[in-house]
Amino acid sequence: MPELQTRLTRSLGLRHPIVSAPMAFAAGGALAAAVTRAGGLGLIGGGYGDGPWIEQQFAAAQGERIGIGFITWSLATKPSLLTAALAHRPAAVMLSFGDPRPFVDEIRAAGARLVCQCQDMSHVRDAIAAGADVVVAQGAEAGGHGALRGTFSFVPEVADELAARAPGTLLLAAGGVGDGRSLAAALMLGADGVLVGTRLWASREALVAPGHHRAILETGGDGTLRTRIPDVVRQLPWPPGFTARIRRNAFTARWHGREAELEKAAAEEGPRYAQAFAAGDAEQGAVWFGEAAGLVHSIEPAGEIIERMVAEAAGLRARGQAG
Amino acid sequence: MPELQTRLTRSLGLRHPIVSAPMAFAAGGALAAAVTRAGGLGLIGGGYGDGPWIEQQFAAAQGERIGIGFITWSLATKPSLLTAALAHRPAAVMLSFGDPRPFVDEIRAAGARLVCQCQDMSHVRDAIAAGADVVVAQGAEAGGHGALRGTFSFVPEVADELAARAPGTLLLAAGGVGDGRSLAAALMLGADGVLVGTRLWASREALVAPGHHRAILETGGDGTLRTRIPDVVRQLPWPPGFTARIRRNAFTARWHGREAELEKAAAEEGPRYAQAFAAGDAEQGAVWFGEAAGLVHSIEPAGEIIERMVAEAAGLRARGQAG
Repeated sequence: MPELQTRLTRSLGLRHPIVSAPMAFAAGGALAAAVTRAGGLGLIGGGYGDGPWIEQQFAAAQGERIGIGFITWSLATKPSLLTAALAHRPAAVMLSFGDPRPFVDEIRAAGARLVCQCQDMSHVRDAIAAGADVVVAQGAEAGGHGALRGTFSFVPEVADELAARAPGTLLLAAGGVGDGRSLAAALMLGADGVLVGTRLWASREALVAPGHHRAILETGGDGTLRTRIPDVVRQLPWPPGFTARIRRNAFTARWHGREAELEKAAAEEGPRYAQAFAAGDAEQGAVWFGEAAGLVHSIEPAGEIIERMVAEAAGLRARGQAG
Repeated sequence: MPELQTRLTRSLGLRHPIVSAPMAFAAGGALAAAVTRAGGLGLIGGGYGDGPWIEQQFAAAQGERIGIGFITWSLATKPSLLTAALAHRPAAVMLSFGDPRPFVDEIRAAGARLVCQCQDMSHVRDAIAAGADVVVAQGAEAGGHGALRGTFSFVPEVADELAARAPGTLLLAAGGVGDGRSLAAALMLGADGVLVGTRLWASREALVAPGHHRAILETGGDGTLRTRIPDVVRQLPWPPGFTARIRRNAFTARWHGREAELEKAAAEEGPRYAQAFAAGDAEQGAVWFGEAAGLVHSIEPAGEIIERMVAEAAGLRARGQAG
C-alpha cells in the first residue's frame, strides 16, 4: 500500500490523509466506519439534529474510531446533541457554519479534536481564536452548503494564515476533491489532507437513494449550481452568505431565482419537496453533490475509492507530475 | 535554475510552463516580453480591439517571441485586427469568450498556435472541434471575465476530456494560480502548465495604475466578487453567462445587484467610470484582479515572480509535498 504521510496522519494516527465530510442525511455510521477501516477518518453527519438518528449511526459504526460533524447554528438550538454525541467518545467533532466558541470547552473536555470548517478568511480567524486543532478550507466547488471562495486559491491563503498565526493547526482542503489528482494537488497547495464529500456520497455505504446515485453518474461538473432554494422550501433559517450546491434539475429550473415566491409557497411545496427527496426523485427535489461529480463514474465501496485515491496521489507524487 | 519540463515546454520551446494571461489594458508588450525573457510565453491583451494600441504593444515587445489574446465576440466585430496581429508573427493566438471557428484557418495559416480559453465543458468540446492546440481551463477564481466552474475540479475534468478525445491537445490551468504551490498543484491536476493573470497584473511591467497596484496589496482573496456592473456601465455587449471578477469597493457596493438601474444611468455613469479607471481610482471604478490577490504581497518585476514560482514549484515536486 502506498504511503502519504503528513502532519495529519501523524497527529491523528491515520494511514491516509483523508477525512470524510459529515454530509447531512448521507454520511451515516456505515460510511464513517468504512472510511476509518480504509485508513482515513470517517465522520457522521449530525445534520439538523435528529438525536435518535445520530444514535443509530453511532451504533452502525460498530465501535470504529470515528467522528461527527454538526451544523453549528443548528446545534446551538439543541446543544444537548453534542453532549450525547461526546458520550460515544468521537475522535473529532467538526463544526461548520456558525460560531464554534460555545462548544469548544465541552469538545476539549471529552478529548475530541476540534475541526472547524471555514469558507472565508474571517471564519479562519474565528477558528484560530477558538483554538481549532484542524481547519477545513472549503471551496465553492463543494456539494451542499458552502460559500464563494474557490478551493484552488483559498487553500494556500489559509495555509499562509495558519503558518503565521497558528502553525500547529492542521489544514484540510475541501471542495472538489474527487480523485488522487486532487489529493496530490491539495498537498501541494499546503494542506495536510483532504475532506471528501461528493466522491464518498457516491459510495455504496452512503445513505443515498438509488435514483440520486444514478443521477450523479449522468451529471458532469457543469451540472450543479449554488442556490438557496432547498433551504427556502424547507424553511431552514440558514444564515446569510451560505448557499447549497445541488444538481441542476427540474426543481432548480423551476425555483432558482424565484426565492420569494417559493417562500410564499413553502407550506405547499415543503411537503412535496420532502416526499420527492424521500423517494429519491432526482428531478423534483434537491440532489446534494458538488462539482467533483465530473470525476465520478461509478458507485463503489468507500474503501475502494480511498485506496484508489491514495494510490493515484502517491504515484503522482513519486513521478513528480501528472499526465 | 530548477526545471519544470512538461508537454507544454517541449511543444512550445519554453523554459517554464507558464503563459501570461492576455489581460485587457494591463497586458502590454513590456509585460509579454518580460514573461518570455523569463522563460515563459507572454501574451498581449487584445482586449476590445484598439488597433493602434495593439501596434504599440507589439513594438514595446521589441521583437521577443510573444503571442496575443482576443475577446472572441469583440474580435468578430473587427476581424481585421487578427490579420494585423498575425503580421507580427505571434507564437500563439488565444481566443476567449465566443466561437473560435471563424478565426481558426487564418491563425493556422500564419503558423501561430491556437489557444482556446474555456469556462465549461461545452466550451471544451467546441475547442476540440476547432482543433485547438492548447485549451485553457479557466476557473471562477480568475480576475476579470470568466464564469462559474472552480479551477480545482474543472482542470482534472478537462484533462479527462482531452485525454479521451484530443490527447495531443495541451492543457493550461487558469484561475487562482498565484505562486509555486498553485503551479505545482496545477500539474498534479493534469495540466501541462498554467496561465497566470492576477499575479502578473501585480508586476512592474503591467500597465496598471499605481492606485490599483496599491489596492491589491491591501486586499485578500475574500475581497473580490463576480459581477456584470463594469460591463453594464461601459455598455459592452458581453454574452450571457460571463461575469467579471473585480475588487469589492465603493463602485461594487453601490451598483452590484442594481444592474437595471445602472443600465438606465449609463450615459452619466459611463464617463464617470472611465475617468475613475483612467485616474487609477481604486474605489469609484473597477479594479481587475482575482482571488489570487490573497497570495500577492508585493509588486515586483515579472521575471522575479516567474523565477520564484518555478523555484517553489520545483522544490515542492522534489520534496513530494508542501509544508
